[in-house]
Amino acid sequence: MNSFGRLLRVTTFGESHGPAIGCVVDGCPPDIPLKAADFSEDLARRATGKSRHVSQRHEPDEVEILSGVYEGVTTGTPIALLIKNVDARSKDYATIAQSFRPGHADYTYLRKYGIRDPRGGGRSSARETAVRVAAGVIAKKWLRHRHGIEIRACVTQVGTFKADRLDWTHVEDNGLFWPDAAQVPQLEAYLDALRKSGDSCGARLLVEATGVPAGWGEPVYGKLDAEIAAAMMSINAAKGVEIGAGFDSVAQSGTQHRDALTQEGFLSNHAGGILGGISTGQMIRVGVAFKPTSSLRIPVQSLDERGEVVEVVTTGRHDPCVGLRAAPICEAMLALVLMDQAMRHQAQCGEVVHDMPAIPPGREEF
Amino acid sequence: MNSFGRLLRVTTFGESHGPAIGCVVDGCPPDIPLKAADFSEDLARRATGKSRHVSQRHEPDEVEILSGVYEGVTTGTPIALLIKNVDARSKDYATIAQSFRPGHADYTYLRKYGIRDPRGGGRSSARETAVRVAAGVIAKKWLRHRHGIEIRACVTQVGTFKADRLDWTHVEDNGLFWPDAAQVPQLEAYLDALRKSGDSCGARLLVEATGVPAGWGEPVYGKLDAEIAAAMMSINAAKGVEIGAGFDSVAQSGTQHRDALTQEGFLSNHAGGILGGISTGQMIRVGVAFKPTSSLRIPVQSLDERGEVVEVVTTGRHDPCVGLRAAPICEAMLALVLMDQAMRHQAQCGEVVHDMPAIPPGREEF
Amino acid sequence: MNSFGRLLRVTTFGESHGPAIGCVVDGCPPDIPLKAADFSEDLARRATGKSRHVSQRHEPDEVEILSGVYEGVTTGTPIALLIKNVDARSKDYATIAQSFRPGHADYTYLRKYGIRDPRGGGRSSARETAVRVAAGVIAKKWLRHRHGIEIRACVTQVGTFKADRLDWTHVEDNGLFWPDAAQVPQLEAYLDALRKSGDSCGARLLVEATGVPAGWGEPVYGKLDAEIAAAMMSINAAKGVEIGAGFDSVAQSGTQHRDALTQEGFLSNHAGGILGGISTGQMIRVGVAFKPTSSLRIPVQSLDERGEVVEVVTTGRHDPCVGLRAAPICEAMLALVLMDQAMRHQAQCGEVVHDMPAIPPGREEF
Amino acid sequence: MNSFGRLLRVTTFGESHGPAIGCVVDGCPPDIPLKAADFSEDLARRATGKSRHVSQRHEPDEVEILSGVYEGVTTGTPIALLIKNVDARSKDYATIAQSFRPGHADYTYLRKYGIRDPRGGGRSSARETAVRVAAGVIAKKWLRHRHGIEIRACVTQVGTFKADRLDWTHVEDNGLFWPDAAQVPQLEAYLDALRKSGDSCGARLLVEATGVPAGWGEPVYGKLDAEIAAAMMSINAAKGVEIGAGFDSVAQSGTQHRDALTQEGFLSNHAGGILGGISTGQMIRVGVAFKPTSSLRIPVQSLDERGEVVEVVTTGRHDPCVGLRAAPICEAMLALVLMDQAMRHQAQCGEVVHDMPAIPPGREEF
Repeated sequence: MNSFGRLLRVTTFGESHGPAIGCVVDGCPPDIPLKAADFSEDLARRATGKSRHVSQRHEPDEVEILSGVYEGVTTGTPIALLIKNVDARSKDYATIAQSFRPGHADYTYLRKYGIRDPRGGGRSSARETAVRVAAGVIAKKWLRHRHGIEIRACVTQVGTFKADRLDWTHVEDNGLFWPDAAQVPQLEAYLDALRKSGDSCGARLLVEATGVPAGWGEPVYGKLDAEIAAAMMSINAAKGVEIGAGFDSVAQSGTQHRDALTQEGFLSNHAGGILGGISTGQMIRVGVAFKPTSSLRIPVQSLDERGEVVEVVTTGRHDPCVGLRAAPICEAMLALVLMDQAMRHQAQCGEVVHDMPAIPPGREEF
Repeated sequence: MNSFGRLLRVTTFGESHGPAIGCVVDGCPPDIPLKAADFSEDLARRATGKSRHVSQRHEPDEVEILSGVYEGVTTGTPIALLIKNVDARSKDYATIAQSFRPGHADYTYLRKYGIRDPRGGGRSSARETAVRVAAGVIAKKWLRHRHGIEIRACVTQVGTFKADRLDWTHVEDNGLFWPDAAQVPQLEAYLDALRKSGDSCGARLLVEATGVPAGWGEPVYGKLDAEIAAAMMSINAAKGVEIGAGFDSVAQSGTQHRDALTQEGFLSNHAGGILGGISTGQMIRVGVAFKPTSSLRIPVQSLDERGEVVEVVTTGRHDPCVGLRAAPICEAMLALVLMDQAMRHQAQCGEVVHDMPAIPPGREEF
Repeated sequence: MNSFGRLLRVTTFGESHGPAIGCVVDGCPPDIPLKAADFSEDLARRATGKSRHVSQRHEPDEVEILSGVYEGVTTGTPIALLIKNVDARSKDYATIAQSFRPGHADYTYLRKYGIRDPRGGGRSSARETAVRVAAGVIAKKWLRHRHGIEIRACVTQVGTFKADRLDWTHVEDNGLFWPDAAQVPQLEAYLDALRKSGDSCGARLLVEATGVPAGWGEPVYGKLDAEIAAAMMSINAAKGVEIGAGFDSVAQSGTQHRDALTQEGFLSNHAGGILGGISTGQMIRVGVAFKPTSSLRIPVQSLDERGEVVEVVTTGRHDPCVGLRAAPICEAMLALVLMDQAMRHQAQCGEVVHDMPAIPPGREEF
Repeated sequence: MNSFGRLLRVTTFGESHGPAIGCVVDGCPPDIPLKAADFSEDLARRATGKSRHVSQRHEPDEVEILSGVYEGVTTGTPIALLIKNVDARSKDYATIAQSFRPGHADYTYLRKYGIRDPRGGGRSSARETAVRVAAGVIAKKWLRHRHGIEIRACVTQVGTFKADRLDWTHVEDNGLFWPDAAQVPQLEAYLDALRKSGDSCGARLLVEATGVPAGWGEPVYGKLDAEIAAAMMSINAAKGVEIGAGFDSVAQSGTQHRDALTQEGFLSNHAGGILGGISTGQMIRVGVAFKPTSSLRIPVQSLDERGEVVEVVTTGRHDPCVGLRAAPICEAMLALVLMDQAMRHQAQCGEVVHDMPAIPPGREEF
């Protein structure tokens, strides 16, 4: 189960400190322009080492295309992407190799497999997400060029610090994917204090797709929201997913929640663009909760592989707030779900003709 | 995509007002005792018509076993279950047959398929969840007898009304799956007022599994939490899923969130029993948000299939709070995910031997 | 694994002597006209009891549509089909219930599952193929109306008796699917002698699809021929599958085998319409070998479930040549593979545009 | 669909003349010793360039393990294998780049995808089979060490030249996988004459697995023989597959074909070790037909990508009889099917206990 998707099928491989990580993207339509440089931007957005607020591991993250592309376009055959691991300092982990880091997958991997690669978390490392981002680049390209769909993500909460407003204009400028430019200095101070304390915090992200036509999504178990939920929850450190009003809808009344339909469009979007597992034509809106990193300089009680009591202190390079790098990963996962669903929709319902034009998105505000 | 699971594979069929609904459970191990009466209890827990707080549709929900069972035990071949639709009053829907009910899948189904069965929501009706519950009964039986796993769910919030405490003792007694017996009269009054107002509200559920051994779950895309997220989000009206501390983990610090390991067990369970997508041996704890029903006596503006403006008033039988019937459905989905993962674990890692005994669950409190 | 297909997914259930057999056809495009009567013709072609040359079990094989069809057309939701078992004489099998019939799945089912339903072979009975035929009817309809594809099958060899020529004109008239009307009396005599002897014989079938456009089939493991091979080999009693020249191609030279391309079409069709796993636009031609039934009046040495020596004599109703009823089953399997591949092709390559027109089929002879 | 298997899932990628070919083997159990050198033997058995009877392309075929192995054993995470393409002479193909080689996938790939990589056949090249062989090495190791299963293949017919007897002793010595040492000089002369003529011929292979326990295989659509058929037919140039007596069973009588059961074992093995899709405990025996290569020095009439008439002459390096290199590929595919089925059996039926011991294989002769 290192594969994701049904028709656009991404299979990833690689450990944090092995020779390379990579993926095979199978089922991609032919004739999509694709070159190695296409991956740079999103991989840079996800990269470690770019500011003091993230892990100081420096990986160039250069993507090598091994197959599936001929003379600059995809051929319909599997696209293999390879990213070499360059700055893997396994010795950092030598001291904790036999210990279970609390809040990490050390114990569970050992318990499952009876063996584990302890270097940098091995397969359970967030390093794997680099190839998700790479695969997502292909999906984003196709969605944009074929359907005019744009996907974006921002961070709306870091620890107890919440965004005052949602303005996409400067999200990509501040290095923190923050949607309120005015708050950025304050947020940086918050993060500096956090880093100095040796502790970490969680984050909440908002992920959106605009331009998705009505009709994508497969009831009953392949619902668009169900697959988005799985996609987001499969990201390292994710602990919660919600669609549209999400957990707030618990306290809403039906008259408040239901989005009325008018000829000018929907009057609101509490549904987050999905009804009955199928897209409505409105913006797809997803919230994701990320937990605080457990790898800290602050010691914690634990056990080692023989069951002996140990104290664990992490000296490797880690992010005080992993959610800060999650925006391109969330975007990639949403893109992969959407492209896969689009292809499935095309297969089953590609010939459906409608008398009535689609209802416009209308108001997207809650 | 009307199938769920990989090794234990459930395929469901049927519309709200068609002749029957049913499912095929494929991949079930042989030699599990199974008879039609085994399904009664959970189907009654989910049933409509049992109190004034839920839809007044009266369905006996008798399960007929069509295959896969011989002389009272499963044979390993596909188990087909059939539930006839008895109390389907399609005429209730005649007036809204051409209209799109806001907050429902009417528009999206039509947009996807170009055609829809409008009677009672057709395939998008929550009626489909009856067969999930039936399939879940098989999984629950196997999990209990083979692994000693117990699965339970309760409602922790209805609209703005929250449970004061979590006491499982009386959850099954009050007909509302409410975990604080003292609050029940107050909650009934809350629901009576709601029903009289003609409006509806959302609900929040807590779903738990105890006794799950460490090691179940398949990284990276088949993570236990990712599959639970998909399973819960595939339930009608679900809008959010969280594991363990979930969205609360955003505001937590790493020192607070990480669950320390001791020889007596974990010191807390913010992880909700899952790390790196694999079970830790602690309690699996899942929160699910359900939106308020959109089918209301209170009129709402909408469109019909020709794009004309209409006013929609629902006169059919509906639940003012659909979440009140979701407990057995959530349990069933969790059971199906766990059994499927258990079988996958058995296939790949069934022969792993451990030197060190598993860490006991320890403290489950946050 | 009681499911077949990836996008058009058929899941079957039911035992020979259980209350019913049936299937769920998931992923079918909407708006295909479908009614219960549509299934009659092919089920009658497959039916037992229609001549002295086949099993005397009399089953009306009436198909009930439980879901997925509304006002006479498919809705895109799962289509559940049910066929009740009427003429199941389980007592015929009482004497052999504890014995392993040589050449049957009795021993292997028991060895796999530790339990088996011995009545009429339970799940391993060819009774299951009735629902394949039913599912195939839907695929055939879609292929014909949407793509002009016709599928047909005939018997080209029964035991040592071979067809002198291939003339499709009277295949459906003689009740034996025989392609040379002049030989039919001789063949009937051959079969009468066989039946009287108490023995059985194998059969060879030819299955063809005309009108399949070039481009269907998914390299590398989803090759059209690979999926056809699996489909045919999954039919009870099938022991061999070949495409085009098949086993004869071993002795051919490359100059003889390769089918030259001209502007008027291919000069021959040794490939059987498939190159590199993808259709060429020529006729798809498949050969299938069926073994002789092992259920005979002639006694054979065997063991029972305790390992004791027994003599097995079959007194139930069986076909002396099961291949005689296999034509509609083979057609159904080919139809299901083609429709599934067509949908997958549509998903990935639906937007491919070609400068050069497709090469016409040309000569189909070897 | 560049993936194979359900629980042991192999995804391959790469073109004949791209930078590399490779695969990801997902789902492999942990703790299997594995190192790069393990792949050498089988890759050498498959290799081109080793005698005058096969293609003169010289590829070292060194396998690099990129992931999934830690300290010499598998970890349960995906195993990525990479083989660089070294001796790719794309210029050989320049002259035929725009032409469709008859009997090749040139036309069908272009027709499917609208684009193709013409260098060496691109993705449709038999070069892809090198990674199947690599993946098969892992499966063979596991089958041998865990279950004592041995897999072997030989060539029983080359063109019109048939093996006189089946003696496995010298099959691996003569470079032609020929089971009758006495015939080898004659066969070499046959092949020399063929090569000089510029023509090619087909081949027939026999593939066997010994030691497979009774009970593996999943009815109805995941039958062991159905999956073997798909696996073999997915190999380049394969045109037919048969199990046990295969096509010969057409002319057999039931009394002759059915394999009687005795306490000392079965009295024959016409079934080829499979009944009802499930292994009997006897030898699994599979026959595969390979067509003659269509790439010849002898010119043939064809068309180019504009539909113009051309004459095609192949000057690249090709095998006069591709079947001569197919033995390790067939073995690999059989190994992959068996390991996958073994894992599925373990998942569903791993806890079945039997009172009666398994029936020994007995006589394997027809």
